Amino acid sequence: MRLHLDCPFELSQSRKDCLILSPQRSSFVLSGALSFVSFNKAGEIFQKELAGNSFQSLWTRAKEIWNRQLGLVRVTGGREGQLRTFYTALYRSFQRMVNYGEYGEYFSAYDNRVHKGSFFYTNDHIWDTFRCMHPLQLLLEPGRQQDILESYNLMYRQSGLMPSCPNVGGDLPVMIGFHAAAVFADAYAKGLQADYATAYEGIRKNAMEQSMLPWVCGAGLTELETCYQERGFFPALHPGQKEWIDLVHQRERRQSVSVTLEHSYDDWCAAQLAAALGKKEDQALFLRRADYWKNVYNPDTRFMAPRDQNGEWIPFDPMWSGGKGGRDYFTENNTYVYTWSVFHDVEGLKNLLGGDQAMEDRLDRLFTEGVRVNGRNVHKYGYFNQYADATGLMGQFAMGNEPSFHIPYLYNYCKKPWKAQKRLRDLMDIWFSDSPTGICGDEDGGAMSSFFVFSAMGFYPVCPGKPEYALGTPLFDQIEIPASGGSRFTIKAPGAAEGLRYIQEARLNGEKLTRPFLSHQEITRGGTLELQMGKRPRDW
Amino acid sequence: MRLHLDCPFELSQSRKDCLILSPQRSSFVLSGALSFVSFNKAGEIFQKELAGNSFQSLWTRAKEIWNRQLGLVRVTGGREGQLRTFYTALYRSFQRMVNYGEYGEYFSAYDNRVHKGSFFYTNDHIWDTFRCMHPLQLLLEPGRQQDILESYNLMYRQSGLMPSCPNVGGDLPVMIGFHAAAVFADAYAKGLQADYATAYEGIRKNAMEQSMLPWVCGAGLTELETCYQERGFFPALHPGQKEWIDLVHQRERRQSVSVTLEHSYDDWCAAQLAAALGKKEDQALFLRRADYWKNVYNPDTRFMAPRDQNGEWIPFDPMWSGGKGGRDYFTENNTYVYTWSVFHDVEGLKNLLGGDQAMEDRLDRLFTEGVRVNGRNVHKYGYFNQYADATGLMGQFAMGNEPSFHIPYLYNYCKKPWKAQKRLRDLMDIWFSDSPTGICGDEDGGAMSSFFVFSAMGFYPVCPGKPEYALGTPLFDQIEIPASGGSRFTIKAPGAAEGLRYIQEARLNGEKLTRPFLSHQEITRGGTLELQMGKRPRDW
Repeated sequence: MRLHLDCPFELSQSRKDCLILSPQRSSFVLSGALSFVSFNKAGEIFQKELAGNSFQSLWTRAKEIWNRQLGLVRVTGGREGQLRTFYTALYRSFQRMVNYGEYGEYFSAYDNRVHKGSFFYTNDHIWDTFRCMHPLQLLLEPGRQQDILESYNLMYRQSGLMPSCPNVGGDLPVMIGFHAAAVFADAYAKGLQADYATAYEGIRKNAMEQSMLPWVCGAGLTELETCYQERGFFPALHPGQKEWIDLVHQRERRQSVSVTLEHSYDDWCAAQLAAALGKKEDQALFLRRADYWKNVYNPDTRFMAPRDQNGEWIPFDPMWSGGKGGRDYFTENNTYVYTWSVFHDVEGLKNLLGGDQAMEDRLDRLFTEGVRVNGRNVHKYGYFNQYADATGLMGQFAMGNEPSFHIPYLYNYCKKPWKAQKRLRDLMDIWFSDSPTGICGDEDGGAMSSFFVFSAMGFYPVCPGKPEYALGTPLFDQIEIPASGGSRFTIKAPGAAEGLRYIQEARLNGEKLTRPFLSHQEITRGGTLELQMGKRPRDW
Repeated sequence: MRLHLDCPFELSQSRKDCLILSPQRSSFVLSGALSFVSFNKAGEIFQKELAGNSFQSLWTRAKEIWNRQLGLVRVTGGREGQLRTFYTALYRSFQRMVNYGEYGEYFSAYDNRVHKGSFFYTNDHIWDTFRCMHPLQLLLEPGRQQDILESYNLMYRQSGLMPSCPNVGGDLPVMIGFHAAAVFADAYAKGLQADYATAYEGIRKNAMEQSMLPWVCGAGLTELETCYQERGFFPALHPGQKEWIDLVHQRERRQSVSVTLEHSYDDWCAAQLAAALGKKEDQALFLRRADYWKNVYNPDTRFMAPRDQNGEWIPFDPMWSGGKGGRDYFTENNTYVYTWSVFHDVEGLKNLLGGDQAMEDRLDRLFTEGVRVNGRNVHKYGYFNQYADATGLMGQFAMGNEPSFHIPYLYNYCKKPWKAQKRLRDLMDIWFSDSPTGICGDEDGGAMSSFFVFSAMGFYPVCPGKPEYALGTPLFDQIEIPASGGSRFTIKAPGAAEGLRYIQEARLNGEKLTRPFLSHQEITRGGTLELQMGKRPRDW
């Protein structure tokens, strides 16, 4: 029996024939193989993977494979519900990117051809995943991450564009930034082998030759990019001002402040790669642009804020302005959240905010302030109608959306790690449960889950591109992950599972640890981090 | 040491002096007594209840009192989380009304005087609580419910108005209906002793002499009430039509369909009381009005729908029309929900809808339909911006708001009890958890919690005023509640706690039960209901 099914996603017509199902009737289970290469390839895959197998034997094999994968992290302690949430999150953190390799060949939509090759990873929303999904996969399975990097290079070579939301059908015009820069810079900083020269070529094109506009893919420059390149900020419109740039997406608008912030960070990432490749001029150029985030910091309001084409500050309400999702100026969030999107220069941001105490106060405000517009409280439903993606609220902090991920860890940078521990345990307990209401926000292809995996393990990569993690507070009594040469890195935090959230003292391989950070190498060389946990905050 | 504190709620100035705290320092615990009667009374209460007690002894006493109260319902089986949710709900179900009696006297804001008397209950939002909180308290603690009924009569005698949202500071203009009628009719139907003559006097005034407008309290009649009394429906405005009745609350509008439906039900309740008191003319009058709900049923759309003052149907979108909260026509919900607000005549509603199958189909649609406006899907945030109170969604069904409470049980009336069981278990599992996100919607003074208590016990009072309960599906393997003369009523449902939700067979005291209902007497005379639970639906 043979079934032809309609392809559920869009491929060029010529490729529709490649999707077949070759079902085998076996106690009412239909099994089928799928190929993007050819009809015959599907038959070959069917023979290799399915023929002669019972449902039971396939089920057993799948279980073995996932057990091995999930066994990368071994935790001790914790209620059943916490274990279910954690391993579900770990499972989701590994579901992408997807390897479309088919035993020595693969089809690529980036040039619409079949290629030789043992792997081809695609399907990734980098805006979501550069923050911690790629860092998590790199930490737990560096070999696979190398194949992923090479797949990005393949997509670039085949299409001439380094993608920012690669899908099996080609790059999608989604979100902002060119965060492939972050993925490669992070891998470089953490010592992964890859073809950085090719990657840098694509990333440089992203930075210099392509439109920065939200939800626009591969278009050329407009006067807006020229303004960024020459004057250091992406210009915004005044409320009610008519848009004159045709390329601007009608719904997504300019998101001018977020675009400035995220490009400035990506420029910093590009500078790291340029330095690695000995391109001193490029390095200097991108390092200069890495400071452009300062151009949208308004010292009067102490918020990141929009500027018009003349460089004038546009008056706005930091909680509320910018229309649906704040998209005139921001990306799905307000500036309470976005002011913190300076991953690569937290010290610089702290200085502008006014030092340790000022930064701590601002973080406290973020986690506690309700929404007020013109001095009046706004109901939650009004808030969600404006910021539909800013779910999982704690004050203005939105656990359910990616720009918030790193923020609780910023307390470590103003000498208040216990406040990071306080917030993080609350966030994990409240917004990540095994109840039917599940986790907050969008899963976003593994992004949300990988935030939880890192946070439950007790550390987090605040700035991809730096080989460093900020300490949080583990959810389990013990966590073990693989380290180099078959060794293990173990975090011991007795009592954490029962709710002890405050680190009283930390010892790394027996030595007292005096900073709330770990380097990548401290983890990957193996060893033990002992955390003495307590009920009350303590300076350490 | 003496402290004077500002009174947190509004009382007449002359009463502010009565609030004192007489604190006693005892290992950093301040204790204080509170009186609405006088400064000296607070001192007396302090001596009686607090003086000489340690924090520990007070804590122990409070625990004993609550243990006794919560021990009224004993359940077996169920995870720790389910037990926590259940007993928390039971606790909340008993937090109101509050007895303001002070050892033989009490202060009443209903005439601003101090009275002799051993109890005085107030603080109740009847729109929320008539549905199942009062029935639950009546079932579990009939003596206290009698005192509550007498307190309603006291408030009526003191103020000349039977209140509908009695607060310690007086009746509040909140919501719609005169549901004290339901509370008294329910008590009468279930055999409670009370001064029904006095109550009926107040309830009759509510029905005949007072404005039916939402959030209006104690005002006289307008042409809108005349339309209801003479023509059988509360008239609505066309979209954009200017309001000309000054008394209409600016935000709350007319809610004309809901007002018609709920008054029609309250009229039926008044008829029961009139019959009990031998007032035949009144009985006939109110029974006629008990049918007025039919006047807002539009046979073309098969929805409850608004009519203008000429009796013409106003065109409207059943999901969406009526502005914020649907308040031009409805109360916080759309007509998908409100069409079911015919508690006293489900058979009549079923006939108008087209019989068993039509009713079942309509219920299915309620639980499954997403929101579409002009043929386009509406995002959840848009929906919540319109219907902020319609939370806990399952399709259009809103678990988080009271008008939905009885609806799942209506499957019993169209011969599909298994669908009630299916929905109810899902609703309990999804929307009532012990996680930090807690339960859905507003607690509303015990209303939401008492829905859960009834549903977790496996039955529910669909129509207060009738001594009958519809069966649902118990959450526990065994439930025991007090019955008359010290006996107990026990529900046995082995496997329910582990998730078996479908009743395969029911036996009441050994006899096969063939209808999915229990009478009040069947419960209060004591005995055992044995439910054989299963994984799959079965007709019985």
